[in-house]
Amino acid sequence: MSDKENFVKDIANIDENFPQWYTDIVLKAELADYADTKGCIAIKPYGYAIWENIQNYADKLFKETGVKNVYFPLLIPESLLQKEKDHVEGFAPEVAFVTVAGGEELEERLCIRPTSETMFGALYSKWLKSWRDLPMEYNQWCNVLRWEKETRPFLRSREFLWQEGHTIHETAEEAMERTLKMHEIYAKIVEELLAIPVLKGRKTEKEKFAGAVETFTVETLMRDGRALQAGTSHYFGQNFTKPFNIKFQNRDGKEEYAYQTSWGISTRLIGAIIMAHGDERGLKLPPKVAPIQVKIIPIAMHKEGVLEEANKLKDILKDKFRVEVDDRSQVTPGFKFNDCELKGIPLRIEMGPRDIENGKCILVRRDTLEKKEVELKNIEKEVEEILDDIQKSMFEACKKRTEEKTQIATNMDEFEEKINKNQGYIKAMWCGKEECENKIKERTNAHSRCIPYEQEHLSDKCVYCGEHADTMVIWGRQY
Amino acid sequence: MSDKENFVKDIANIDENFPQWYTDIVLKAELADYADTKGCIAIKPYGYAIWENIQNYADKLFKETGVKNVYFPLLIPESLLQKEKDHVEGFAPEVAFVTVAGGEELEERLCIRPTSETMFGALYSKWLKSWRDLPMEYNQWCNVLRWEKETRPFLRSREFLWQEGHTIHETAEEAMERTLKMHEIYAKIVEELLAIPVLKGRKTEKEKFAGAVETFTVETLMRDGRALQAGTSHYFGQNFTKPFNIKFQNRDGKEEYAYQTSWGISTRLIGAIIMAHGDERGLKLPPKVAPIQVKIIPIAMHKEGVLEEANKLKDILKDKFRVEVDDRSQVTPGFKFNDCELKGIPLRIEMGPRDIENGKCILVRRDTLEKKEVELKNIEKEVEEILDDIQKSMFEACKKRTEEKTQIATNMDEFEEKINKNQGYIKAMWCGKEECENKIKERTNAHSRCIPYEQEHLSDKCVYCGEHADTMVIWGRQY
Repeated sequence: MSDKENFVKDIANIDENFPQWYTDIVLKAELADYADTKGCIAIKPYGYAIWENIQNYADKLFKETGVKNVYFPLLIPESLLQKEKDHVEGFAPEVAFVTVAGGEELEERLCIRPTSETMFGALYSKWLKSWRDLPMEYNQWCNVLRWEKETRPFLRSREFLWQEGHTIHETAEEAMERTLKMHEIYAKIVEELLAIPVLKGRKTEKEKFAGAVETFTVETLMRDGRALQAGTSHYFGQNFTKPFNIKFQNRDGKEEYAYQTSWGISTRLIGAIIMAHGDERGLKLPPKVAPIQVKIIPIAMHKEGVLEEANKLKDILKDKFRVEVDDRSQVTPGFKFNDCELKGIPLRIEMGPRDIENGKCILVRRDTLEKKEVELKNIEKEVEEILDDIQKSMFEACKKRTEEKTQIATNMDEFEEKINKNQGYIKAMWCGKEECENKIKERTNAHSRCIPYEQEHLSDKCVYCGEHADTMVIWGRQY
Repeated sequence: MSDKENFVKDIANIDENFPQWYTDIVLKAELADYADTKGCIAIKPYGYAIWENIQNYADKLFKETGVKNVYFPLLIPESLLQKEKDHVEGFAPEVAFVTVAGGEELEERLCIRPTSETMFGALYSKWLKSWRDLPMEYNQWCNVLRWEKETRPFLRSREFLWQEGHTIHETAEEAMERTLKMHEIYAKIVEELLAIPVLKGRKTEKEKFAGAVETFTVETLMRDGRALQAGTSHYFGQNFTKPFNIKFQNRDGKEEYAYQTSWGISTRLIGAIIMAHGDERGLKLPPKVAPIQVKIIPIAMHKEGVLEEANKLKDILKDKFRVEVDDRSQVTPGFKFNDCELKGIPLRIEMGPRDIENGKCILVRRDTLEKKEVELKNIEKEVEEILDDIQKSMFEACKKRTEEKTQIATNMDEFEEKINKNQGYIKAMWCGKEECENKIKERTNAHSRCIPYEQEHLSDKCVYCGEHADTMVIWGRQY
């Protein structure tokens, strides 16, 4: 059995058992592992480095728009969580409670935050006095807990990492502007950093966030045709500012309740990267988010000068790229190639004694597996161009697949047949009644993903009830 | 009443009531506020930006030495916490427990991590196979909870932010080397970034970390003469690797337990900055850690061109420095000067119509309040030099005070008199018996800070019992 066969045999076939393939990749590419705490994962260095790259990229974009970071308490008194009716209904079933601390039973139970609208609400209420204090636009990078029954690494973990931005504004218009700005920023992060095309729109009443007036979403489509919600931004109007008493003296000297937003992205995005780009060989990371962009693999490493030249090449590249040399002596180059592919490293450089003699090396890109022999003297430029091209090509490949998996249905038989055959997005007209939305879900297990910004007029009739419909909704089975 | 009086009157007198001054600064400089969760604080943008600067500086140093970041679960099953006897004894009284989650009583209680030796232990045990896997050197930036009875913002909060590094090694020597390397890195962070001189040494048996073989500490002295432990690194030997079964096949093919370390710094450091540098006017931030290094205050802002020139100056400085213009129209320049001082901004630039006409501006440094008129055309160079000088001067001033507050005692009357009069560090010889250490604490309320690296031979006799003593210990009352 060759190295490759030996290596790949432990990963489930991606087309036959995608869920198992996913779990295999998480574990074998060393992104995360299960921990002693049920339903929680340990994010390993390679997985966490992806998250750090997402954080750095996002945090910079947030700060450029005036957002400031804060850190508020993990534990929320139960009475605070209960102040907004819809919100508590949405989250209560998933909350974990601290009841004993410092050796004593607590008088009031403390929730571990499932999200922090309530904590931000209480503090904003304390701090806000005048219109001059507005907007307050704070964000925190933190852990949250939601006690899910069924969990999957990154996609649905009881504890996960995220950022949650919460802002308050003088006017409804300004709050809506912030909501939509974050929606745009999320689209940019997912498309430009993660190379995954997004579908933008707003959620239906049924699917929106607990307590929000409007929820905007960036939706993505995975390789298996299932949808994944990548980031949401919520406009609350005064739904929270009234129960939380977040008011200010306005420019006319009158008291007024502020207008609020919140928005978040999480370590789910790592799940999206895996499932949007991965293939039968393993993970496939877009260069911009890859912890290691280039891996140099010396061939015939025992021969004099080979490892030295590999390290020299690393030194040339390291200022501009995230680069490593695989100098392990206990495994073969073939094993290293497979390891590179499994871990999704965008570009590998192979160099042996003859290459060095000829002043050349071989570049092998992960996305297409194409090989290119290049002159060592042009290496920086070559690597830069290829990484750029990989980033673009991965986005295009993902876009093409998403388009292929986007279909139209004008009646329920068609809807059911198409989603059963091909999964993916189904575009269909909707009358606006929640009853129809519920029935569609019952019959097809598809949720409404969003009411997309880019509307099309497919017909005049609701795909479910046949009554008049003005709205196109995109549906899909979801993660 | 002038602006200044009006502004400063709400801060307690630093020499008369230092604890109240501290709390006033935390609240009024807007570093943090109390939250609805008892014993926890909300870190506000200005406080959090200080923490981000500490994180960025430290994280880079850690990574340069090969440390990798991870994220492991917040919740630790109670049985896991109990695996190492000394450790559980040390932490059990302070733990918060989750007992109810997802609407159900849990079968086993889950601890909110007070520190993660146990979680890292369980995972390292799972991952470690061969000497080739070593060292594993992982760190996480996270929140931890310790249910303290008495709390103070940043210094002793039930929840706090920190980094905890945990490493395992092939040999005792390598583990000790890592422990000492982190000790050096912590000294560098505190001295070079925070401009606070440190005392380096190891803890006595009594004061070391629960479960450690050795604890190394960097100790700092606050303005009031009380000591604050700024960062600790622990060498565990095999104390945890044995109960946690963290073993590997060594180079001889035999099974062996690994050698372990852990090390941490926390948001306590923000407390140290406040108390080491602050004065009667407020906070005083070292330039390297200050969120805003330069504040430009336009004088006669209503006059044409003034605000424009201030913004132009900002644009010139913003690539090299963290700079803002205070363009508030509802407060006077005098108010802004005081605000700058309260918030500890290292340098303020005043510029009015006449300055602009003359191509000049006034630089006022926070540490000495010295003013300097400079030519606008030299502004970058001037600002850079002054900020450098402020960073150095603040360190020197702090060092001088620490030296003045470091005294020698050769008997207990002297010890007691000196610490009562002047607080500070007391150098004294110690026989090595824990009984003497306990008695000293009972009589003076001073803890042993550390056995410093730089030993002096003050006498042959233990300051308490008079028996033979080889070891000099530094003592102090602590935060």
